[in-house]
Amino acid sequence: MEMLINYSNALTNRLEEAVQLKEPTQLYEPVKYILSLGGKRLRPVLTLMTADFFGDGYENAMNAALAVELFHNFSLIHDDIMDNAPLRRGQETVHEKWDINTGILSGDVMLILAYQLFEGYEPALFKELAKLFSKTAVEVCEGQQYDVDFETRDDVTISEYIKMIDYKTAVLVGAAMKIGAIVAGASSSCQENIYEFGRNLGIAFQLQDDYLDAFGDPETFGKQVGGDIISNKKTFLYLTALEKANSEDAATLQHLFSVNPKDASDKIETVKAIFDNSGAAKATVLEIERYTDMAISVLEKIDLSEEQKDKFREFGAYLMERTV
Amino acid sequence: MEMLINYSNALTNRLEEAVQLKEPTQLYEPVKYILSLGGKRLRPVLTLMTADFFGDGYENAMNAALAVELFHNFSLIHDDIMDNAPLRRGQETVHEKWDINTGILSGDVMLILAYQLFEGYEPALFKELAKLFSKTAVEVCEGQQYDVDFETRDDVTISEYIKMIDYKTAVLVGAAMKIGAIVAGASSSCQENIYEFGRNLGIAFQLQDDYLDAFGDPETFGKQVGGDIISNKKTFLYLTALEKANSEDAATLQHLFSVNPKDASDKIETVKAIFDNSGAAKATVLEIERYTDMAISVLEKIDLSEEQKDKFREFGAYLMERTV
Repeated sequence: MEMLINYSNALTNRLEEAVQLKEPTQLYEPVKYILSLGGKRLRPVLTLMTADFFGDGYENAMNAALAVELFHNFSLIHDDIMDNAPLRRGQETVHEKWDINTGILSGDVMLILAYQLFEGYEPALFKELAKLFSKTAVEVCEGQQYDVDFETRDDVTISEYIKMIDYKTAVLVGAAMKIGAIVAGASSSCQENIYEFGRNLGIAFQLQDDYLDAFGDPETFGKQVGGDIISNKKTFLYLTALEKANSEDAATLQHLFSVNPKDASDKIETVKAIFDNSGAAKATVLEIERYTDMAISVLEKIDLSEEQKDKFREFGAYLMERTV
Repeated sequence: MEMLINYSNALTNRLEEAVQLKEPTQLYEPVKYILSLGGKRLRPVLTLMTADFFGDGYENAMNAALAVELFHNFSLIHDDIMDNAPLRRGQETVHEKWDINTGILSGDVMLILAYQLFEGYEPALFKELAKLFSKTAVEVCEGQQYDVDFETRDDVTISEYIKMIDYKTAVLVGAAMKIGAIVAGASSSCQENIYEFGRNLGIAFQLQDDYLDAFGDPETFGKQVGGDIISNKKTFLYLTALEKANSEDAATLQHLFSVNPKDASDKIETVKAIFDNSGAAKATVLEIERYTDMAISVLEKIDLSEEQKDKFREFGAYLMERTV
């Protein structure tokens, strides 16, 4: 989507200026580093796009979009420590390139810098933005905690799982869009609806991530196919398969998710077959569609031209068209 | 000081309500835990005291004071991880009682909760408080980074050291008081002066901490006497002694600060003798007095009754009267 590239380029330029490499450099270098790794910058692009559609241009939303990107990267640095992840976007994670202490402290300062980026807005706007930002940030922490808790629980329900991805991923997508709408001066019903659009899309996106992890094309899916299966992650696919499979398959699945074979290829194949035969794969595809449809139908309620709604729909389609 | 006990009691009661133990409990339990460890609550008490003196009562400053206390405890949790500290106020640190990941995430959520505590103030006030809070929080992170950097540097200057303790400790003392002044509607010159009062007192307090670590009375000093010497910490005493000692003593000092003997009692005695003979101990006492006097003289510029200034002086004296 060409439109997105424009926003993304504008953002990248401003990101350079927004964070200065100053003393103590050991604190700010990792901040510059993680921001330089790129990524799709989906969340801040959504802030700019929403502000552009609801107001006059995206320029006034730039600092708010940068705040969203800083927050997202703060959470990546701290999550990568917690997940013991060596790589992020194909490069060393911050705690791997430096150390855990550097990751903690550079992450902390990024969270504060994010709040500071709102300071250019007048007080009423500043407060509205900071409140939404704090509420979302607390939810993201809670989502991360649920994710950690689920690792050692064997009674996670599907609705608990949806709540976890909602908090960990989707609320920030919704908030990124709502922030754009707030800066643009959209009505509160518009703000709420665009939040729900983004949030539903965020859940659909995360469910698709679960699906693609097992059934994605290794050529086009960015990550290692089967990664969730190797690390015994209780995804939507897994929880649904446990519920739908016959007792023998369910027992096999539970057993396979308790072992860590050196060569995981047999495990991956067996698990994928159970995901398929149990109907969990199909159910996941339907659930992705259901959340995507919910997002699209919220859009109907919003006071925008059909042309602009098309752009949002197009964006939704773009987001969901990743190769299966 | 009886006055302080009133503020402190009011705070402790409200701290209970301010942080609810809700789901996910694994996230909020450590927050309740660290807050329950007590401590002198000096910073938020200063917020209440300042608001009380500059306005009508402290009640309206309560949420701002709680924000200061949450921020301080967030920084303790993350610093304790970085310092690998097993104990905090005689109890297990958060990462020791739970684990590092819990410490990171519970710390993160506390920082955000601190911002949320300002949300009860109207927009102009909210923005003023959040701006000061963010500026201070960035400085505290920078101070912590300097502290970490100094561990592996052998060319730390005394002025760099003062900047480190200023950022790591003193600016928050200043900000705690300025926050109280802002909430009370004090003039900006009052705000600036009370900030400088707190900041100078904060530096004096930290220098005194360095001094007491070596020369404090083991009976009354809260921590292990000689702790900084055992851990080879480059304090004001050490840096001053290096500068003032004859070359033989300086070489001995440098050598002793490069080893970690099992029984440190000889090392502690030798180092203390060099601190004394070089004149570093005396110089430190004079520097503590200099910063205390600077604090007191800033007070002269403030539009308060002599009775109220006496209370601030009394507080300064109380803070500095810890047994040498």
